[in-house]
Amino acid sequence: MVKHKTSALQESQGVSNSEITNVTSIAKIKSKRKTSLDVDALISGILNNDISALSRGITLIESTNPEHTEKANTLLKSCLPHANKSIRIGITGVPGVGKSTFIEAFGTFLTSISKRVAVLAVDPSSSLSKGSILGDKTRMEALVKDKNAFIRPSAASDALGGVARTTRESIILCEAAGFDVILIETVGVGQSETAVHSMVDFFLLLQLTGAGDELQGIKRGIIEMADAIVINKADGTNLNLAKTTESDLRKTLHLYNDKPSGWTPKVSSCSAIENRGITDIWNIIQEYIEVTTKNKYFNTKRNEQNTFWLLETIKNALTHKFFNNDTVKTELQHQLKRIEQNETTPFAAAEFILQMNPKA
Amino acid sequence: MVKHKTSALQESQGVSNSEITNVTSIAKIKSKRKTSLDVDALISGILNNDISALSRGITLIESTNPEHTEKANTLLKSCLPHANKSIRIGITGVPGVGKSTFIEAFGTFLTSISKRVAVLAVDPSSSLSKGSILGDKTRMEALVKDKNAFIRPSAASDALGGVARTTRESIILCEAAGFDVILIETVGVGQSETAVHSMVDFFLLLQLTGAGDELQGIKRGIIEMADAIVINKADGTNLNLAKTTESDLRKTLHLYNDKPSGWTPKVSSCSAIENRGITDIWNIIQEYIEVTTKNKYFNTKRNEQNTFWLLETIKNALTHKFFNNDTVKTELQHQLKRIEQNETTPFAAAEFILQMNPKA
Repeated sequence: MVKHKTSALQESQGVSNSEITNVTSIAKIKSKRKTSLDVDALISGILNNDISALSRGITLIESTNPEHTEKANTLLKSCLPHANKSIRIGITGVPGVGKSTFIEAFGTFLTSISKRVAVLAVDPSSSLSKGSILGDKTRMEALVKDKNAFIRPSAASDALGGVARTTRESIILCEAAGFDVILIETVGVGQSETAVHSMVDFFLLLQLTGAGDELQGIKRGIIEMADAIVINKADGTNLNLAKTTESDLRKTLHLYNDKPSGWTPKVSSCSAIENRGITDIWNIIQEYIEVTTKNKYFNTKRNEQNTFWLLETIKNALTHKFFNNDTVKTELQHQLKRIEQNETTPFAAAEFILQMNPKA
Repeated sequence: MVKHKTSALQESQGVSNSEITNVTSIAKIKSKRKTSLDVDALISGILNNDISALSRGITLIESTNPEHTEKANTLLKSCLPHANKSIRIGITGVPGVGKSTFIEAFGTFLTSISKRVAVLAVDPSSSLSKGSILGDKTRMEALVKDKNAFIRPSAASDALGGVARTTRESIILCEAAGFDVILIETVGVGQSETAVHSMVDFFLLLQLTGAGDELQGIKRGIIEMADAIVINKADGTNLNLAKTTESDLRKTLHLYNDKPSGWTPKVSSCSAIENRGITDIWNIIQEYIEVTTKNKYFNTKRNEQNTFWLLETIKNALTHKFFNNDTVKTELQHQLKRIEQNETTPFAAAEFILQMNPKA
């Protein structure tokens, strides 16, 4: 086609043109457009209870790519008004206590009474916990196939803070996607219990029969957090032992002070494998909600949890920023040497570094 | 007496002069001179092993009066080169376990083998611990009178950080005053154990016979910290029970991972009242020092502790400063309301507040 050369801006035909636009840039722009469309799609997908959209939404939230931050915030903001309506249950217990089997049984029970159940995991890859949870989905065969269930293993991360944040935000997405019950699994050995306890309404500790808490590797602090202790694997020859353990645990719990919830932690037994005692646990949780809704603790706790995460996030960011300042890093090393040589105390050194007041 | 008026600076006799200098100001200056002299006197007093100077030095360090800060720092700086030579031992256990009686027996034993012993206490007045320790010195009758012993109750404070700092600094003064062994007592219920564990070489947990750790209200984390667990009150009818408890505790300790110290925590029994088993404990501590000096852990730990306190002090100061900023305070309240109304998440709110970047 011959063009009229009425403008110098027009190209001559027949000349092999060099690329005047950057192909990569175009690809980026296209991808950006696609992604921004995706956020809207994600939002409407999630609000329409679409599990696939929910899954992609959580991936967006988990992304450490700074370009995704804004999108993640948009997504969260749109989901927030539809959140906060589920019951959030934390489930912990040492490896071997049968958490996966329990969640399979409990989750299946919940979907059978028309509840939609999301299962999340908080499992910072620590040297302590060794190996991730929810990894072995084969133990949740029925729940995995259940269309009213959503199972999401935790994103791999060394930082508990990061995992905690993404889990908290995943809860919002799950709630916006219409899930009635959110189960948050964690391993009863590390600091993750405190994090999970700070994001759930009800904290359930799974125990085994017999052994005292010191043998089960459960910290006393975790027992203090529990709203219910459930003895799992209460089947076969274990049945009588379960009764003894129940009564032991009740005695132990008696030594603890009253909880601000006005709730007395319950002790119960179940067999996840034989599917017995599962209804009782749901009844306990419902009773808890009734009690704490009446005395207004339910909402008080959620507000306190929000405050906790707000302050915690700020604290972490402040210290992270300060200690990543190059001047601080250098001076820190210098002061540590001075301390080692008895030239200063840690407190005087701290004051010195703080007075540097670096612009981070 | 008539003065020769050879100088205008001389006063006329017989004239009633009005006060040309402010009496209060003079008193202040005098008092200031006295205090600044006092620091030098304190330093030489402390370095000359004078207990009265040590006591006043600790009071200076504990002072929250900003005017005393510089003096306290001067004092510490002068003492530092003479510090670090003692053995620092943390002693914990729930109320009723017999800490005071134990310290009386152990301290008296140490002075009998020509050691000078200082006893400090970390006891943040918390609702949990209820009642201060070392308050009842009547349980330490012999030690109180012992000229080679120095007993110092903790300063009353609600902030563990403050108590921890003054205790850490008191250790420096005690060491400069030539004390060979510093015993730091704390109650085995709060967070103070972690603080004390971070300032001692050896951490000793006192237990009673019989009851499991859950009944004695000891957190598993505290057991994990212990370099030795000593069953106190192993006397009379308790003797056999002590043996059983010892073996139970050894089994429990077996479940714990190896310590970085390369030291296997020891279990022992004693009767502070009958003064039996006390030498064994000292032998255990000496063995620990031998092992950890050989594998260099002893110094590694002290350096790690210094790093911990340096970082901890900075972190606390950073967050304290940030949250005390008026703009931050106002915005924090605003954001908390927004969170409560589901208009934002704690994380987005935190980012917003952090981006305000206030000049504190």
